[in-house]
Amino acid sequence: MKLLIPGPVTTRAETRAALGQDVAPWDNDFRVFHARQLARLLRLAGGRGAEHTTLALPGCGHFVTEAAIRTFIPQGGKLLVPMTGAYGERMARLAREAGRVPVVLPVPDGTRVRPHAVAEALSADPGITHVGQIYSETGTGVVHDVVAIGAAVRLAGRRLLVDAVSAFGALPLDLSVQPEIDAVVFTANKCLESVPGVAFAVARTDRLTESAGNAGSWSFDLADIYAMAQRAPGAARFTPPAQVLCALDVALDLLELEGGLAARLARYTANMRTLYDGLLRLGLTPFLPRAVQGPIIANVHAPTDPNWHLQSFVDALKSRGFVISNFYTTDKPGFRVGCIGAIGPEDMTQAVAAMDAALTEIGVTRREAA
Amino acid sequence: MKLLIPGPVTTRAETRAALGQDVAPWDNDFRVFHARQLARLLRLAGGRGAEHTTLALPGCGHFVTEAAIRTFIPQGGKLLVPMTGAYGERMARLAREAGRVPVVLPVPDGTRVRPHAVAEALSADPGITHVGQIYSETGTGVVHDVVAIGAAVRLAGRRLLVDAVSAFGALPLDLSVQPEIDAVVFTANKCLESVPGVAFAVARTDRLTESAGNAGSWSFDLADIYAMAQRAPGAARFTPPAQVLCALDVALDLLELEGGLAARLARYTANMRTLYDGLLRLGLTPFLPRAVQGPIIANVHAPTDPNWHLQSFVDALKSRGFVISNFYTTDKPGFRVGCIGAIGPEDMTQAVAAMDAALTEIGVTRREAA
Repeated sequence: MKLLIPGPVTTRAETRAALGQDVAPWDNDFRVFHARQLARLLRLAGGRGAEHTTLALPGCGHFVTEAAIRTFIPQGGKLLVPMTGAYGERMARLAREAGRVPVVLPVPDGTRVRPHAVAEALSADPGITHVGQIYSETGTGVVHDVVAIGAAVRLAGRRLLVDAVSAFGALPLDLSVQPEIDAVVFTANKCLESVPGVAFAVARTDRLTESAGNAGSWSFDLADIYAMAQRAPGAARFTPPAQVLCALDVALDLLELEGGLAARLARYTANMRTLYDGLLRLGLTPFLPRAVQGPIIANVHAPTDPNWHLQSFVDALKSRGFVISNFYTTDKPGFRVGCIGAIGPEDMTQAVAAMDAALTEIGVTRREAA
Repeated sequence: MKLLIPGPVTTRAETRAALGQDVAPWDNDFRVFHARQLARLLRLAGGRGAEHTTLALPGCGHFVTEAAIRTFIPQGGKLLVPMTGAYGERMARLAREAGRVPVVLPVPDGTRVRPHAVAEALSADPGITHVGQIYSETGTGVVHDVVAIGAAVRLAGRRLLVDAVSAFGALPLDLSVQPEIDAVVFTANKCLESVPGVAFAVARTDRLTESAGNAGSWSFDLADIYAMAQRAPGAARFTPPAQVLCALDVALDLLELEGGLAARLARYTANMRTLYDGLLRLGLTPFLPRAVQGPIIANVHAPTDPNWHLQSFVDALKSRGFVISNFYTTDKPGFRVGCIGAIGPEDMTQAVAAMDAALTEIGVTRREAA
């Protein structure tokens, strides 16, 4: 069974095998292992030794996004959130419920956030201290230009938080040339191709120190995680998902073996090309024109045929060895297909063939968008 | 290698084997699986179908403790926390940093919380709405009488939150006769003998409904998790640690096969008896007299011998196949040994022999308390 849901992703057998061990997470050997793992993630983010640090948080991407918002933005502080789609909306909700004030920046459907629009919004409201930007928006499939947006943020003298949950491990990132980034957050179970259960932030150490006391949550206080790491490198404050961390380390080995981020991005790009071409060949309508379609996930319009029924399609596809989500996060009905995980273009070719057969099985002949 | 740290615990091979699979967490089959798992946990807590519900939260015990505090106690609300030891202190800190007001109730060292003292404290401060009680305090080894404390809380017309992280799966619990309990919280990686990465609350459905809007955190809002579960049983709001949930289900099978909570408690009790007798035989001094020593964890005073060095002892013990913590959470120096996990009295006999050899190796002859 291949997971195209997209994330948690299909993993390699070697990665899953590393889960099957008992681990004492405060043991000195494990601390050395974990500290080394955090340093590997730092390098993937382009972080610099003394300027940046990697912080691990048990749980999921939403948790570390909330933790970054709480840590770097004080209670009542303002965060500009470009409305890139479902995950932009979620970031705004996380901020609002945490007592921060999200200022939403409308983003036209299926377009990249315009750095100029960010600059204007920041100029219009000097009270905004931070911008929260989704790097790869699952709700649309668009990859946003974090470098150009970051430049606008830097010029305005503000700070940037990057949600790279669906990007980290494939899309480029270089914190060493983006000093405006307080933190980039991500999880193990997307482009890093490991299993879910742990999230990370790579953050500026100076900003962590300055931000002590902001969080209003011990659990989600990245500054406190940093303080602990300084006292005892590789040690966790609370019980970490140790087996999940073991699997991630193997996944990082496999990423290196593949040739690093560039090689992984090339594979995902080939996956997406195969999928996109195939969708068009089947008569289906992707949400995005090819020019703005990112390599991570494609959203596809629901076919106009009255026989279209998402769960039936999902079931028919699953019986052919491919799992896609049984929900969509776009405004208009559709389905979504991930191109990430331990899969290659040949899998995407088979997935397209399976979609064709599944559509036929459920009686969908008119496949263009409604 | 046997883990006596205590928790994460030694698991059975069958449990670890269940980790090794790719899982699509929103797939209909997985939702059925997960909903059934939540119902199994409800039954272990003595929860009643319509009155109680089980809520899963990715992460660790501290996270679900904070989530329960946030959900059931509004911002600025008061929580009485008996100072049972390190975990009582942690609960107070979680509450304080979340903007709730912990009122601490001193508890004499190595004693059980007196229900009468709880009643007096509640009577003295009508502003306290909740009591936060640790069931099995890892910081001492004492198991507290949650039934008697609950009766005092009920009589005072207040509500109870139970931290059963180190208790659930072995110590008895019957929510059906303790209506004063808003929620009991626990994790998979202690007495349930699975791996870390997920935490749970079993909570009253009426109180969840009444508590909507309290949390001040989307991530930690148990009322929102409940709302989602009502819309889509077995579906998670955010990516769950799916492999960890698969392992837990096997661990629950093994708990049933063993004969349920009573059989597990009997095994842990036998483990502790073997350990406690052995510690005395070695000339070591447990923190607690036998009468109040719970079956989960023993804290042991550091030997008076100047050659005593915790890390050296831990290393010498590890080379003999047993891992204990390289830190202590008692005020006075010592070490701690867990009696939980997939281990039996024969393992504890071997552990005691290993301690004897390890003490000899590091040159500790005077073993009584300093």
